[in-house]
Amino acid sequence: MEKLKKYVSVKHEDQFYHQGAVELLVFNFLLILTILTIWLFKNHRFRFLHETGGAMLYGLVMGLILRYATKVSDVESGTVYECEKLKSGPSTLLINVTNQVYEYQYKREISHHNVNGHQGNAMLQKMTFDPSIFFNILLPPIIFHAGYSLKKRHFFRNLGSILTYAFLGTAISCIVIGLIMYGFVKAMAHIGQLKGWEFHFTDCLFFGSLMSATDPVTVLAIFHELHVDTDLYTFLFGESVLNDAVAIVLTYSISIYSPKENPNAFDAAAFFQSVGNFLGIFAGSFAMGSSYAVITALISFIHLTKFTKLCEFPMLETGLFFLLSWSAFLSAEAAGLTGIVAVLFCGVTQAHYTYNNLSPDSKMRTKQLFEFMNFLAENVIFCYMGLALFTFQNHIFSPLFIFGAFVAVFVARACNIYPLSLLLNLGRKQKIPRNFQHMMMFSGLRGAIAFALAIRDTESQPKQMMFTTALLIVFFTVWVFGGGTTPMLTWLQIRVGVDPDEDLKAEAASQSASNMDKNTTKAESAWLFRIWYGFDHKYLKPILTHAGPPLTTTLPEWCNPVARLLTSPSAYGDRLKDDGTDYIINNDELTENHESSAHTPVPAQDRTGSTQATGKEDIHEGDLGLGGYKLQLEHTAGQPQKN
Amino acid sequence: MEKLKKYVSVKHEDQFYHQGAVELLVFNFLLILTILTIWLFKNHRFRFLHETGGAMLYGLVMGLILRYATKVSDVESGTVYECEKLKSGPSTLLINVTNQVYEYQYKREISHHNVNGHQGNAMLQKMTFDPSIFFNILLPPIIFHAGYSLKKRHFFRNLGSILTYAFLGTAISCIVIGLIMYGFVKAMAHIGQLKGWEFHFTDCLFFGSLMSATDPVTVLAIFHELHVDTDLYTFLFGESVLNDAVAIVLTYSISIYSPKENPNAFDAAAFFQSVGNFLGIFAGSFAMGSSYAVITALISFIHLTKFTKLCEFPMLETGLFFLLSWSAFLSAEAAGLTGIVAVLFCGVTQAHYTYNNLSPDSKMRTKQLFEFMNFLAENVIFCYMGLALFTFQNHIFSPLFIFGAFVAVFVARACNIYPLSLLLNLGRKQKIPRNFQHMMMFSGLRGAIAFALAIRDTESQPKQMMFTTALLIVFFTVWVFGGGTTPMLTWLQIRVGVDPDEDLKAEAASQSASNMDKNTTKAESAWLFRIWYGFDHKYLKPILTHAGPPLTTTLPEWCNPVARLLTSPSAYGDRLKDDGTDYIINNDELTENHESSAHTPVPAQDRTGSTQATGKEDIHEGDLGLGGYKLQLEHTAGQPQKN
Repeated sequence: MEKLKKYVSVKHEDQFYHQGAVELLVFNFLLILTILTIWLFKNHRFRFLHETGGAMLYGLVMGLILRYATKVSDVESGTVYECEKLKSGPSTLLINVTNQVYEYQYKREISHHNVNGHQGNAMLQKMTFDPSIFFNILLPPIIFHAGYSLKKRHFFRNLGSILTYAFLGTAISCIVIGLIMYGFVKAMAHIGQLKGWEFHFTDCLFFGSLMSATDPVTVLAIFHELHVDTDLYTFLFGESVLNDAVAIVLTYSISIYSPKENPNAFDAAAFFQSVGNFLGIFAGSFAMGSSYAVITALISFIHLTKFTKLCEFPMLETGLFFLLSWSAFLSAEAAGLTGIVAVLFCGVTQAHYTYNNLSPDSKMRTKQLFEFMNFLAENVIFCYMGLALFTFQNHIFSPLFIFGAFVAVFVARACNIYPLSLLLNLGRKQKIPRNFQHMMMFSGLRGAIAFALAIRDTESQPKQMMFTTALLIVFFTVWVFGGGTTPMLTWLQIRVGVDPDEDLKAEAASQSASNMDKNTTKAESAWLFRIWYGFDHKYLKPILTHAGPPLTTTLPEWCNPVARLLTSPSAYGDRLKDDGTDYIINNDELTENHESSAHTPVPAQDRTGSTQATGKEDIHEGDLGLGGYKLQLEHTAGQPQKN
Repeated sequence: MEKLKKYVSVKHEDQFYHQGAVELLVFNFLLILTILTIWLFKNHRFRFLHETGGAMLYGLVMGLILRYATKVSDVESGTVYECEKLKSGPSTLLINVTNQVYEYQYKREISHHNVNGHQGNAMLQKMTFDPSIFFNILLPPIIFHAGYSLKKRHFFRNLGSILTYAFLGTAISCIVIGLIMYGFVKAMAHIGQLKGWEFHFTDCLFFGSLMSATDPVTVLAIFHELHVDTDLYTFLFGESVLNDAVAIVLTYSISIYSPKENPNAFDAAAFFQSVGNFLGIFAGSFAMGSSYAVITALISFIHLTKFTKLCEFPMLETGLFFLLSWSAFLSAEAAGLTGIVAVLFCGVTQAHYTYNNLSPDSKMRTKQLFEFMNFLAENVIFCYMGLALFTFQNHIFSPLFIFGAFVAVFVARACNIYPLSLLLNLGRKQKIPRNFQHMMMFSGLRGAIAFALAIRDTESQPKQMMFTTALLIVFFTVWVFGGGTTPMLTWLQIRVGVDPDEDLKAEAASQSASNMDKNTTKAESAWLFRIWYGFDHKYLKPILTHAGPPLTTTLPEWCNPVARLLTSPSAYGDRLKDDGTDYIINNDELTENHESSAHTPVPAQDRTGSTQATGKEDIHEGDLGLGGYKLQLEHTAGQPQKN
């Protein structure tokens, strides 16, 4: 290690020098270690440590080593230079040092009290990521994957509840945490622990909003492995996915809330502007994300229809899919919206429409690609969290604040889940049982999003205190709650070993094609949702995919010429293939494995589909194909156990 | 565009600002356009424009637009500031500007005459990548993919010829280009076109070495599509893969060649030091790359042997494979070696050993992942080349130098191919025919590596002139020679429509298991190669993979206890499964498509393998399984034409 470091510093002037090779190597090493450990654990069916927990643990150990085993060096970089000629910080700075011109790139603004943190250990400094890396590189694949792997049928069945938990619940959580923390901060100020730092109610709300982003990745992985009740899985997954988006936009809106006069007094104008900002950014990001997905769906649809041979190039399809999804993120960022939220809704829409148009090979490729990116990004973030506890140099540990935060987080989670479940049960035919509510309460883990939001701004002392506290809460919840999931499931007597596809198929079998659109909304029958579902099924799906009824039957008669133009010939024969889209999901390898082998029969089925496209009206052929598929699925899923 | 730009500059101070969103969006847009065009072209079987050529064309157009349609702004960044207090350029600079501290990151050193190029158009400046991005992000996946997809059997059969072309040929090419260019430079100096710039013979050699990296990606794609003669394909592919490594290390060695006194005179000590550097770096990078691959092979081997259930987690396997391969690159960089060369040999070794240990699902995943990364990186580089013609601000167009370079490149290619072929034909049983030689001469395209090597250093005027010239040569060769491949194949009457697997299988069928290791070296029978092959087949393969004969039969009797420990039980039954490794390859989607469906029977076959592991000595079962596989392959390969 030391030797490598020396090499790097010797070669500093060399044009062939690779910046950050050693640091990246440290991360690679940690990830390799994590994978090997998890491999071992999975083999022995240890479920108390998920890979994210393991990554965090190894990061912690490595951080400890880096902190106390490396020497302080590179003192030069801590000195502040005066520059009278500059009026503002330009993006690129050219500096003449003893007749050589050096180019410097603007990085960020630093508060005076933090200058010390930039002195000293160069290795620790190098191991510190730019916070924008989280938002621009690591989080997008995670969030997109979450959107893309949403179990759509179950998700839409419980949409009302999920939206309530995600929007109302996050708002409640944010306000409750904010209020409790404000009490603690007042108390701290009273006993003189705040050292005169400014700490407004908006700061407390800011902390509340960032701590409201739940990330039950550990819990969901175990749920998936144990095949826990699908509705509970969907509640938690859907809530955590949407709640990330809400928390991110909420944090942003609060951070730009700027009352004109007294920052402690309530300023109605500024408040409504913040609410307006929240709604504007959320809606804008939603629109941006879904419109890119619609473009992708249209392109892949046109290609599939006009040039049937093009499914022979899955690489091009995958590339297009990837690039357009990334463009959704970039466009939103460039337009001043929130890229992460855009990419989430892009993922959901891609899964809903584009996925149906992809060739079987591309379906698998896109799924595996995003799964892989998600896996790497997630583990890098959790590794980094472990590292940050020791390598971040501006920690402020305040026991009272930390204690307050723990209390606030749990109280806020309770104020979110129990009252809202009570409310929802009033309207739901199929009630949310008591043990589900307890499990959801228990699954309020904090993870990557809370961390990324907290590390984005660590300039002022209150923000540093928040960051330290957020980090500790993440550690605690991931290890303690994550590790306790399996015992908790047993204790709460929650049904495990449920086959989600069986669930769906039993339902699908009982319904005929005619009453399909009514039957799927069985669990919740909000009129708004019914209208959307009908619109989607009758118009959007036929336009954007090969699924759904042909437009010629759903549109009024005078639209027939347009309808014919927009309907692909194969749509006539594929009314029931819509169901095929329910098999996206699984961020776990086990199921992925049987999924990918189960997917094999699809090409054959698809070929039947394109034979139908030539004119046959053999409607139930597709359904029979699905039946065969199901059998195949069961067959292969059973085999790994025998090996 | 303008509106977006304004947004970004307004939000400059904002912590939520995403640097480079607009620029990345431009690239995304270009890539999407490229994919759509290529999709259209492939559908109509136009072969005169490969995706790389298309990417370059779109890049060119976009560069033109950016150059002439965007306004000059951000004048501040062109000013050079004096700083007397600084003695050297620290890696991080803290600057106090009107009571705010800004952090700046060291980027590079700039020559005084280039300061002007940094003034002016901020958009053009933003569109300019840091040259290190090529070497650290874009090239590694391309090079790894090349190594990983080497068609091993054909490659090893022709190893001698390929090594001759790659090492001796590249050296010849470098020296010939250097000499010719030196003549032209002398002439330029004579007529006063050099404006007093220093231009030594070593600079000419530097240009020679960077222009010696051939990149026939366009030609190979067409070869692959048309199923051109496998030996010709292997010559070109093998040569271009290895020649990249040679050219990179050669360029580096020449760039650090520093004679003590007169730079024009020959300094024997410095020369031998350069040769020593070349050999040291090459050997070191080779060792680094292959040792990481051996580690991967061992880990995957142990896991496969001890925990048979672990192939149920292809994601972990893929992650480990990816991270260890990347670590090879990073370790080499950190140790002052050449990461690209390390990653190339890592790829070759991974394909040779690790690939055999992977689960069928991981085989496909790793192949598709690297294929996808290769596809994106390649198109980004070619896009950027198009852009660079207009956005790079320090071009020096010197007609005489450009003319000289074109002459030199073609003469050097001829001096490489024809004499070496003559030499090789003396030793080869199966001669390299005249038309193959012409085709190889014609396929001397320059591409990504030459560009990346040229852009790495554009500080001095001679280097800028070289960069401009290299760029023009890349454009010319990719469009003219790339586009002319199909007519040239017809004109030279080169055999197309050859099935490489058929070729191999006909051969495999005619040979029994006993004389296998002799038979494969039919085309070339250098004793050194025979020894290596024997050693690899008898010892390395059994230790690192499940293929090859059991160690207990190949090692001397006294080693039996060790041999038993190192041999997996399944090795006894898998002597002939070795052949399965020949099906890695195909950077073309068409074949990928039938490949992935053809791969489907493999799990079943593998399961037979693990049943054998329980003790049966059913040696020829594996061979029969392969036969079934072959039938399946032909079956599916035939189908797409019928649809």
